[in-house]
Amino acid sequence: MSASGLHSPNSAVAAETLEALLRAAQERVPVPFTLRDAERALVALLEAEDLWDAIRRSRVPMRALCAFWEVLLERGLLERTEEGLHLKEDALALAHELGLGPAPELSCPRCEGRGLDPARLPEDIRERFSRLARRRPEAIQAFDQGFVTEETTWARIALAWSRGDLQGRRIFVLGDDDLMSLAAALSGAPRYVLVVDVDERLVRFLQEAARAEGLDNLEAVRYDLRTPLPEAWIGKFDTFFTDPTESFRGLTLTLSRGLLALHGPGGAGYFGLTHAESSLPKWAQVQRFLLEHGAVLTELRDEFSAYANWNYIEQMRSWSWLPVQLRPTRTWYLSAWHRIELLEQPRLRNEAAEGDIFNDEEAATT
Amino acid sequence: MSASGLHSPNSAVAAETLEALLRAAQERVPVPFTLRDAERALVALLEAEDLWDAIRRSRVPMRALCAFWEVLLERGLLERTEEGLHLKEDALALAHELGLGPAPELSCPRCEGRGLDPARLPEDIRERFSRLARRRPEAIQAFDQGFVTEETTWARIALAWSRGDLQGRRIFVLGDDDLMSLAAALSGAPRYVLVVDVDERLVRFLQEAARAEGLDNLEAVRYDLRTPLPEAWIGKFDTFFTDPTESFRGLTLTLSRGLLALHGPGGAGYFGLTHAESSLPKWAQVQRFLLEHGAVLTELRDEFSAYANWNYIEQMRSWSWLPVQLRPTRTWYLSAWHRIELLEQPRLRNEAAEGDIFNDEEAATT
Repeated sequence: MSASGLHSPNSAVAAETLEALLRAAQERVPVPFTLRDAERALVALLEAEDLWDAIRRSRVPMRALCAFWEVLLERGLLERTEEGLHLKEDALALAHELGLGPAPELSCPRCEGRGLDPARLPEDIRERFSRLARRRPEAIQAFDQGFVTEETTWARIALAWSRGDLQGRRIFVLGDDDLMSLAAALSGAPRYVLVVDVDERLVRFLQEAARAEGLDNLEAVRYDLRTPLPEAWIGKFDTFFTDPTESFRGLTLTLSRGLLALHGPGGAGYFGLTHAESSLPKWAQVQRFLLEHGAVLTELRDEFSAYANWNYIEQMRSWSWLPVQLRPTRTWYLSAWHRIELLEQPRLRNEAAEGDIFNDEEAATT
Repeated sequence: MSASGLHSPNSAVAAETLEALLRAAQERVPVPFTLRDAERALVALLEAEDLWDAIRRSRVPMRALCAFWEVLLERGLLERTEEGLHLKEDALALAHELGLGPAPELSCPRCEGRGLDPARLPEDIRERFSRLARRRPEAIQAFDQGFVTEETTWARIALAWSRGDLQGRRIFVLGDDDLMSLAAALSGAPRYVLVVDVDERLVRFLQEAARAEGLDNLEAVRYDLRTPLPEAWIGKFDTFFTDPTESFRGLTLTLSRGLLALHGPGGAGYFGLTHAESSLPKWAQVQRFLLEHGAVLTELRDEFSAYANWNYIEQMRSWSWLPVQLRPTRTWYLSAWHRIELLEQPRLRNEAAEGDIFNDEEAATT
């Protein structure tokens, strides 16, 4: 792994400054306020058009937010203006050193910002992605592959960007037939993207794409998630993306590796879960697992991910269950996209897993 | 309460038929499959364009779904056609007697159905709502009121309709300055809507609106949720909507009343939660509370609800925290919209609550 990806000379001093501001705010109010909240508040001030827009974008309890602003005002990082608040030079430099920056405006113009419109992402990066994706390896059953539409990949990028999980972040992608790592790197937003996959074909494809496109911050490594997470990756990332196999064992194993890769509280993770292969009691089990390991759900958008039809449809175990054996002609396999955020350090073991992680009674595509 | 609202002569026989089909399917596969799943599968067959579209719309594990289809085929309720599956007359009658029906297509055309487009709801009902809403009571602080935009109310209706929580359902609305009950009744979809509020002004307004619009299935009753839920409402509803005050005590009390009003497993509930008044640790507490009481989260869409600015902004406790005291000129108060579904009978006490349910350290608008 390139050392440059995970370290930045200015960031240590900047992080200390932010922590000092955080502690000062925490002392003033009896309301939880985390480092991640302080980051959100800072980014909101970079993005906002006025005071109330900053409250809206901060996604932090107003009481804590106002205390944080008070601290920024006292230390000369923020000033009052007739229209509201204005970040001063030192605060802009601090945000820059922390790698924080505003996200582009990506909300869907049709619905009061309720949805996201990936078409608002720069056209050139979407085109470069499309061109590369044409040569992607075909989905194979041995690894329970099946990739999402390009539109879905960009909707995921749009959501993560708008939630502060992309800009300046160190991203970990576990299993990537969706090419999330490539889209993330092409966006130019992340500090570093490490993508791991058990499939040699995908790893080579991503390495070649990174070389061809000059994406220095994208690194692809072969890794079988049944083996423990290498020490060098533990606690080193801000955000993970994964779209795991859905046996309860495979799913929680994948999420465990993702959670272990996060730096701790404030780290965010994204993953998919279907109805086709997971009953609601399994969904509840997954939610309990996440809460038990210090994570809170902050988004759960059903039907967010749409999958391109794959070639091995007639070899799926569910093919034999069908009353009429017709191949699908349109998108039918959807999944719910989840965002979690860590509130505590997860207590997870980094152990090897033996045997079949793909199958349980509810599995359909393996 | 009108007896007609909660009983239907044909529904008991139809419910028995569906339960028999359900049991037959359950015996064939070792995968959870509930009555609600069977309903979803039936509605999907009413809505779907082909076999795969039916899988997509069923939101049920494929293995259980295929077993259910097998049972329907054997009992002559479903037939194979060249294009896939076709519901026969008896099945259509069964769905009708159960009050089940297809939902209109409401997905946003911009984003592969990822978002919902309330503008696809019939224009006349939206106009009738707008005309009535012009005379709505003003939001007052005593009850922590503050209503959502009309667009938000319709987005909530669109989501509930598309999730099978409106058509033919008995709806319980707890606290309704958002006028959800009126929008639901105007849609013509629910079997019955009971709306309760502590605010006499709202109850009268809704009663008058129901009378003026000839909405026989809409009933408004004054109720203070600090008192136990009347026996007649316990276990009688399919869906609840609420947008509670956010002190942990007020929130869980409101959710408890909502959960108690549901008929049991398969019942669904919708509620809002903000960042402005609730930290992520509080969100996690709420999620644990729901899971402990037999509910699973099936949607969590942040920034779904947008609130019209209210008049008492300068009387909010958070006004004094602001570094610059400017009134907002645009929408700033947003909340995340949650859908839960019951998997088990919740074990909750129906007790009176004393004292202040509005305040905790994170409260901002009270």
